[in-house]
Amino acid sequence: MSTTSAPRPTRQPYVSVIGGYDVAPDVLAAAEEVGRGLAAAGAVVVTGGRGGVSEAASKGAVEAGGTTVGILPGTDRSEANPYLTVAVCTGIGLTRNALVAMNGDVVIALDGSFGTLSELAHALLAGTPVVGLGAWHLERESGSERDDVDDPILRVASPAAAVAAALKAGRRRTRG
Amino acid sequence: MSTTSAPRPTRQPYVSVIGGYDVAPDVLAAAEEVGRGLAAAGAVVVTGGRGGVSEAASKGAVEAGGTTVGILPGTDRSEANPYLTVAVCTGIGLTRNALVAMNGDVVIALDGSFGTLSELAHALLAGTPVVGLGAWHLERESGSERDDVDDPILRVASPAAAVAAALKAGRRRTRG
Amino acid sequence: MSTTSAPRPTRQPYVSVIGGYDVAPDVLAAAEEVGRGLAAAGAVVVTGGRGGVSEAASKGAVEAGGTTVGILPGTDRSEANPYLTVAVCTGIGLTRNALVAMNGDVVIALDGSFGTLSELAHALLAGTPVVGLGAWHLERESGSERDDVDDPILRVASPAAAVAAALKAGRRRTRG
Amino acid sequence: MSTTSAPRPTRQPYVSVIGGYDVAPDVLAAAEEVGRGLAAAGAVVVTGGRGGVSEAASKGAVEAGGTTVGILPGTDRSEANPYLTVAVCTGIGLTRNALVAMNGDVVIALDGSFGTLSELAHALLAGTPVVGLGAWHLERESGSERDDVDDPILRVASPAAAVAAALKAGRRRTRG
Repeated sequence: MSTTSAPRPTRQPYVSVIGGYDVAPDVLAAAEEVGRGLAAAGAVVVTGGRGGVSEAASKGAVEAGGTTVGILPGTDRSEANPYLTVAVCTGIGLTRNALVAMNGDVVIALDGSFGTLSELAHALLAGTPVVGLGAWHLERESGSERDDVDDPILRVASPAAAVAAALKAGRRRTRG
Repeated sequence: MSTTSAPRPTRQPYVSVIGGYDVAPDVLAAAEEVGRGLAAAGAVVVTGGRGGVSEAASKGAVEAGGTTVGILPGTDRSEANPYLTVAVCTGIGLTRNALVAMNGDVVIALDGSFGTLSELAHALLAGTPVVGLGAWHLERESGSERDDVDDPILRVASPAAAVAAALKAGRRRTRG
Repeated sequence: MSTTSAPRPTRQPYVSVIGGYDVAPDVLAAAEEVGRGLAAAGAVVVTGGRGGVSEAASKGAVEAGGTTVGILPGTDRSEANPYLTVAVCTGIGLTRNALVAMNGDVVIALDGSFGTLSELAHALLAGTPVVGLGAWHLERESGSERDDVDDPILRVASPAAAVAAALKAGRRRTRG
Repeated sequence: MSTTSAPRPTRQPYVSVIGGYDVAPDVLAAAEEVGRGLAAAGAVVVTGGRGGVSEAASKGAVEAGGTTVGILPGTDRSEANPYLTVAVCTGIGLTRNALVAMNGDVVIALDGSFGTLSELAHALLAGTPVVGLGAWHLERESGSERDDVDDPILRVASPAAAVAAALKAGRRRTRG
């Protein structure tokens, strides 16, 4: 039996798109454009699976023919937005934010509140490249090291630049 | 913008197929047939995402055009078998067995060792219907209640019967 | 500064006591006696932290001067029984059963339902010795291997025997 | 049987102390003083259970007669520092950072890197009061809301002030 047509999940880049639920309309529009761009490039789009930026990015991706995964906090698939190829329940509440970050080879962070901040922190903690489009600014206070701390987030100014930077960071990472 | 073509993950049944890594060839053949039958019925096949029964069921499903999800123990997608539409990392080790059970509206249990037993137990604990095709036999020792404890697993004798029983149990559950 | 008086958590045996919520009075009495015996031997008693066998074992242990840990499913300590030295929230629901098993160097299993079964399965999966006092009977169906499968649970007939067997198994494990 | 002597874990405040592994000596000294102050006030000190700020805070607390809990990332208690009353394994890796935050009624954040940031974010996400002594500075970029976002962290300038602020915030919370 041939396996030619089998999907090869380990060969596609997975990109997590993180951002808030209650954000401005232009943030949602940017998320949708990011999703569309990632799908066009063959990336799997990972989100937290519910509303806001997660829904917009998934909508953009799935309507462009892409694959989307939502990693849900609860035990019930009914909390998922309608733009997911696959919805995965975790039952671990907002601790699942760590898994949203974990499943991206790269993370694209848009505007969002503390949930987004937690995903961003888990990505940085794991050494996953983070591309920021309107993301949190972070500054560690510690005295002597302060000048040495560069911004750990790669800042970009548009959805297209976010997609390009994410794909490049993912590729460099895969090769490394 | 039309959402007509959007997937609706909450409308498809999700069926977890559980079983061991190191099992007899006829168990693997049964798992593949189960996967094929579930895909033909439009169900999403959920597994632990690695070898053995997980791989065989995913292969059967994906080669029949179905959607497969693997819920992995580690943080690295490279441990996935090649028959997954989507591989999800959890980083929680074998504690992820609870999530494999959680993501099925119904569980089909084949032969397997203690990992399969843990998934089976989590399904029963959550009140998820379990269809058994060569699955563990369980008996609670507690004296007076012993006679009242019916087998909590719906036993079947063939892959086709497992698929039919799972779809029926899932349908009843959705309606209930 | 001297560390002489510091506790050394890695030197004390940790024993998980598992069993159901809704069990017969003699099971609760046995759990309390098990807890008392473990505390007398200097073991830390780990449970799921709520009612039934968990509460009885914790009561026995703490009233004998021992240390007890309850690993709770929710995010709120108020669900803990009152016999815990330390209550730890997980917020992962019944998936936490895997953690109850994980934190014992040895597990003592009493009568209980599917929750107990899941903890027992996780312990066996991890290779942790399991002492059974009225615990589930398990039989794997797989044909040819059937005769080779010995009972993986060390069966005992009294609380005192459970404590003795657990301490012995834990000691052998630590040495190995 | 009297329960007078039973511990009442739900009545003591639990305070999580978070901070980095590789931090300056004065940060470690501050952590130890924080731990000592919390123990003197009857609070249970929760940490990630390993080195750096976790170890210093646990040392301060346990040497002052307090109770300390370490919530470890791995499955093996041997990674614990020697100043824990109880070490709890999770096996979920750095995803456990969410549990370190979850187990505090209040969190005291010292200097630390991305791990500390993730714990801080999970605390803020859960609405848990966070007292900062040299903690991360965070700024959300989102345009119009920017002026309305006050610092979500209660900043203090000394270990004694951190303990006092934490106990006050915890008390207000319990009453609320």
